[in-house]
Amino acid sequence: MNLKNKSIVVLLSGGLDSSTVTGIAKKSEAKIFGLSFDYGQRHKKELNSASIIAKHFDIEEFKIIKLDLSLWGGSSLTDSQKNIPIEGVQANKIPNTYVPGRNTIFISVALSYAEAIDADFIGLGVNALDYSGYPDCRPDYIKKFQELADLANKRGRENNPIKLWTPLLDLNKEEIIKLAFDNHVPFDKTWSCYSGNSKPCGKCDSCRIRNAAYEKWLNNKNKK
Amino acid sequence: MNLKNKSIVVLLSGGLDSSTVTGIAKKSEAKIFGLSFDYGQRHKKELNSASIIAKHFDIEEFKIIKLDLSLWGGSSLTDSQKNIPIEGVQANKIPNTYVPGRNTIFISVALSYAEAIDADFIGLGVNALDYSGYPDCRPDYIKKFQELADLANKRGRENNPIKLWTPLLDLNKEEIIKLAFDNHVPFDKTWSCYSGNSKPCGKCDSCRIRNAAYEKWLNNKNKK
Repeated sequence: MNLKNKSIVVLLSGGLDSSTVTGIAKKSEAKIFGLSFDYGQRHKKELNSASIIAKHFDIEEFKIIKLDLSLWGGSSLTDSQKNIPIEGVQANKIPNTYVPGRNTIFISVALSYAEAIDADFIGLGVNALDYSGYPDCRPDYIKKFQELADLANKRGRENNPIKLWTPLLDLNKEEIIKLAFDNHVPFDKTWSCYSGNSKPCGKCDSCRIRNAAYEKWLNNKNKK
Repeated sequence: MNLKNKSIVVLLSGGLDSSTVTGIAKKSEAKIFGLSFDYGQRHKKELNSASIIAKHFDIEEFKIIKLDLSLWGGSSLTDSQKNIPIEGVQANKIPNTYVPGRNTIFISVALSYAEAIDADFIGLGVNALDYSGYPDCRPDYIKKFQELADLANKRGRENNPIKLWTPLLDLNKEEIIKLAFDNHVPFDKTWSCYSGNSKPCGKCDSCRIRNAAYEKWLNNKNKK
């Protein structure tokens, strides 16, 4: 995908994945417009990381949108009465950290922003190998959202649709960590933990997946 | 469609169409959860109408969500530098009152709310006959959004998807006005005008379409 001088809206949460997408876009010399959400998440501190990554890559514009999904909760990330699971990812089970409709909302808002500034791409850090099993991170969902985008706006109706760009979709977490370092992502500045504590908890799915992959990546690197 | 005792999230803007959907749902004895957006629209006063309609039909819950789309504008409804067109609807042309991504965002948020409260339906006042030509009000778009909803969340993945309900989709505005009166909608309390003035301007597309249909409905009624 040639992104040189193309405008791209990146959904930048401040986590490893979206920071890596930002790094890849930067290396490709795209014009990057970062978009974060203050949605009532427990781990609001990820927004600090998003700001740091935005500055680090000197992107064109960085916006934080307020949209309070804790108004109806339905997830342990937006409802403090629910506990973050620490028993590890269960096969074929959607954990309670799943936030109803979150990615659908975020991509929709990105689509609005992209259309208004005439951007050609929306960059997403979704991946469906080492992940928490969320329905809105899977390849069939992303494909369907592209079909929707093709109908949802002027650009789509004029056969010049805004394209969803998901460079991490089929990668495992170790490969993503490698890409992060290859693309100058300040790894230690990204924030993946679901808890809002000062240090990553090490127990939530997000920490477990990240830490296990980091160990693996480090071992493989040291072997060489 | 049997809505009796079913929970339904209705996107209630305070306009004629969404108020009519609310009225139909009420007559069907559904449990109605109204959702409005304070999105930086010029005609923010429509939210007063939405509140009045919500009270009139004594719905279960009514929420107004803040989400500032004027951050990037791209529409005469969210950018005060742009003028509302008064030359009438042009065939095959999308007018500048089109707000990038608006319906995609609104339906996405409704999907999140519906999933969190375990509602079975999302009620939408979209119609594609006497309308402004927006891409995100057309039947193919609605059909595609349903396909997305079927993949986007737990309910969809468990083959029990939340259904988009669009009872006005194929009706003309005169038929909608008839339905409004049949379902006890307080017509004069609804607000359709794109301008934010104290009285409807009578010149914008929304006023023109509504007024022409009302005249027609009144004439036909008086003939009988």
